[in-house]
Amino acid sequence: MKNSYDVVVIGGSAAGIPAAITARRYHQDKSILIIRKENRVSIPCGIPYIFGTVMDVEKNLIPDGVLEKNKIDLIIGDVKEINKEEKSITVDGKSITYDKLVLATGSNPIVPPIEGVHKNNIFPIHKDPTYLKNLLLKVNESKDLVIIGGGFIGIEFAEECKKNRKNNVTLVELMPKCLMSAFDDEFCDEAKNILTNENITVKNSRKVTECLGGNDVNSVKLDNGEIIKADAVILGIGSIANSSLAKSIGLDIGELGGIKVDSNMRTSSHDIFACGDCIDAKSFFAETPSKVKLASTATMQARIAGANLFSTKRSDKGVIGVFSTALNGQAFACAGFTEREALAHDYQIEIGVAEGPNRHPGSMNGMQNMKVKLIFNKYDKTIIGGQISGALSAGELINAISSFILSKFTADDIAIFQLGTHPALTASPIAYQLVNAAEIANTKMLLSGEDHV
Amino acid sequence: MKNSYDVVVIGGSAAGIPAAITARRYHQDKSILIIRKENRVSIPCGIPYIFGTVMDVEKNLIPDGVLEKNKIDLIIGDVKEINKEEKSITVDGKSITYDKLVLATGSNPIVPPIEGVHKNNIFPIHKDPTYLKNLLLKVNESKDLVIIGGGFIGIEFAEECKKNRKNNVTLVELMPKCLMSAFDDEFCDEAKNILTNENITVKNSRKVTECLGGNDVNSVKLDNGEIIKADAVILGIGSIANSSLAKSIGLDIGELGGIKVDSNMRTSSHDIFACGDCIDAKSFFAETPSKVKLASTATMQARIAGANLFSTKRSDKGVIGVFSTALNGQAFACAGFTEREALAHDYQIEIGVAEGPNRHPGSMNGMQNMKVKLIFNKYDKTIIGGQISGALSAGELINAISSFILSKFTADDIAIFQLGTHPALTASPIAYQLVNAAEIANTKMLLSGEDHV
Repeated sequence: MKNSYDVVVIGGSAAGIPAAITARRYHQDKSILIIRKENRVSIPCGIPYIFGTVMDVEKNLIPDGVLEKNKIDLIIGDVKEINKEEKSITVDGKSITYDKLVLATGSNPIVPPIEGVHKNNIFPIHKDPTYLKNLLLKVNESKDLVIIGGGFIGIEFAEECKKNRKNNVTLVELMPKCLMSAFDDEFCDEAKNILTNENITVKNSRKVTECLGGNDVNSVKLDNGEIIKADAVILGIGSIANSSLAKSIGLDIGELGGIKVDSNMRTSSHDIFACGDCIDAKSFFAETPSKVKLASTATMQARIAGANLFSTKRSDKGVIGVFSTALNGQAFACAGFTEREALAHDYQIEIGVAEGPNRHPGSMNGMQNMKVKLIFNKYDKTIIGGQISGALSAGELINAISSFILSKFTADDIAIFQLGTHPALTASPIAYQLVNAAEIANTKMLLSGEDHV
Repeated sequence: MKNSYDVVVIGGSAAGIPAAITARRYHQDKSILIIRKENRVSIPCGIPYIFGTVMDVEKNLIPDGVLEKNKIDLIIGDVKEINKEEKSITVDGKSITYDKLVLATGSNPIVPPIEGVHKNNIFPIHKDPTYLKNLLLKVNESKDLVIIGGGFIGIEFAEECKKNRKNNVTLVELMPKCLMSAFDDEFCDEAKNILTNENITVKNSRKVTECLGGNDVNSVKLDNGEIIKADAVILGIGSIANSSLAKSIGLDIGELGGIKVDSNMRTSSHDIFACGDCIDAKSFFAETPSKVKLASTATMQARIAGANLFSTKRSDKGVIGVFSTALNGQAFACAGFTEREALAHDYQIEIGVAEGPNRHPGSMNGMQNMKVKLIFNKYDKTIIGGQISGALSAGELINAISSFILSKFTADDIAIFQLGTHPALTASPIAYQLVNAAEIANTKMLLSGEDHV
């Protein structure tokens, strides 16, 4: 291993890998090194699926072949020190100099300050494969499982940990609904119904106040006094930027605790870039930073950082936030603002909703329902958000909505969007939900107040 | 039934229905009438699926409920005469006046000038349900079926007419490959392989020169002298604008034989609009008219026509052409120009191709391969076309590509597109084909000529 590189990337997951690959794509002759802590890297969004669908930590790893193929060197080690004046880092006692440094140090799971939260068998979701292997064993033998947090990770863990098992799974969420940060109430209710039908107990508007037991947890206590048996507890509360290295060398830190970057993903130090969960990302909609921490967002930021290292080529438009998930074969997807979020940001909004089969005629194979809700800014009629539930192809349709948001399409633009349709693949062009939802909102805005068909 | 309407729409399928509905959405108080020839209307793109998947003409009808719901009157009848000075039409001897008229008269299947083409059991694809019922009976009893034409309709008919039957199905296509008007060679080859594996005989670069037999066809003769047994022949060659009514009243006709319209879908007569297969549509890419005739395109044009009747609100950007189909559970989708088409239009182009699983990890349920090819204009790096094969969600992903083309996204824009990804729904964000295909083309253009990773 050399002791000098053109590019050093710290972190080897959803931000670090594409940052290094992008640097390679743009610079055939630069030497590039990734340093990461983990021997092997879990596919981050795949982690919940280890526990039911995949049932094997080994099948949820990002292969290192992509690094070799792109002539990217790899060191497994913990970077304890950066010297930004000398442009060097120290990893396991060895000093390596860099020309450009990328911080892709990710995030850490939040461990809430609940009494007893450090007892045995209470698990924040770390991404380390060995840790996850142990967690899988615990889930397999667990009879009473409590999951704290009803966001994406929490609901996915709940469903997967229940799959093919005769255990009791209880999900406890502080907010009145699950998935509230991503979806409006009607979608949250749909998701909850699916979980309930799968015999998962969902407790909303409830807080765990204490984890009870001896060394090992045996139950949790809720704010209403209720005690729920628990031989294992999973903490799916979210994550917080891991910006400790950046802090240690005095880089500017944002108000949410992530590394501050400009729209080129450059930190307050000229030769140091940062991307992914470790940064405070700009929002597409507002000047305030975005709370969204997603692998897909991280890869986008990494593709900006990796291209900009030696000359500025790309600029971040800010995070839209495009999520999707699936519960019992039904997709939930969203992009941009929910109705609730838009109102909280003081937008005047109009809504269009359209629902129907995703095939035409409905007797075609694979027919599922699909509901599309679009949210428009009344002021200029541009789309600021969309939500879909139903057929699995929602996972790709949401990308059309993301593109509309990015291009600031109006309701009118979407109503005459040139869609592709096919009996075996989509809704009919007459009943196409995306277009009709836009047209419904459009005519509401046009006729403002008049009852319309 | 009244004898005077604010809006009369002639035609009740993929163009007529959304034109009338859009008129209703924009004008609560106008009286609206649809006049159509057919007692009942087949879902046009669903027609091939009657013959294998659905097996029932009755299950492939557009329900009339949507007309009632939108307070749209309906007359079943044949309009023989329009008096554009008096603003009236004559249907079955009765005169009805209109304020605005919409021609949505569709297209007729092409019957090629082959010797013997008018024998019994040779079927152009008419959309009339009664005609299709008879065709279904013929297909069910047919032992040797020949399909002339290897475009979308031809290949879909071939697969469906073979499904669950012990017949011989032969597809004869004039061009060296099937689907050549929509896809580049490698995609055409994939499609042909699927058909061949289903024991459909595909003959490319072959022309049917004669239909042989007595009153009933018994075989077809190819240009190489080969004779193929045929107790039924289906003509899937395409369709031609039905603009005869428009011609009869002297409206301007385009070079492809369709009704000439401006970008507001207005004909050369101020109070007459036209949309759908009956018009010569503008292309998104060139000044020449587009040959694309699709239900989805028709609905888009209808939504423009319907909104513009009483005041101009919408403008057509021209037809991109977004198709999709599925063969044996594998999707094929395209938008805009193929490589071949772009070169024929004298573009300097760059290509990016990326391929991989549509799930992450690959052991997730429903994993299929997905290949994405993107075509860029080298001059300004904007996307001018895209093709996808593989997983069924391609049917929605192609809509993201359509949106990119419409917004004139560059390869760079797409490379940092904010995608939504999920293990159970899409490729991983690192390996996401759409973004990587763009990045590959982008770096090729940047490094122009240099070998890149």
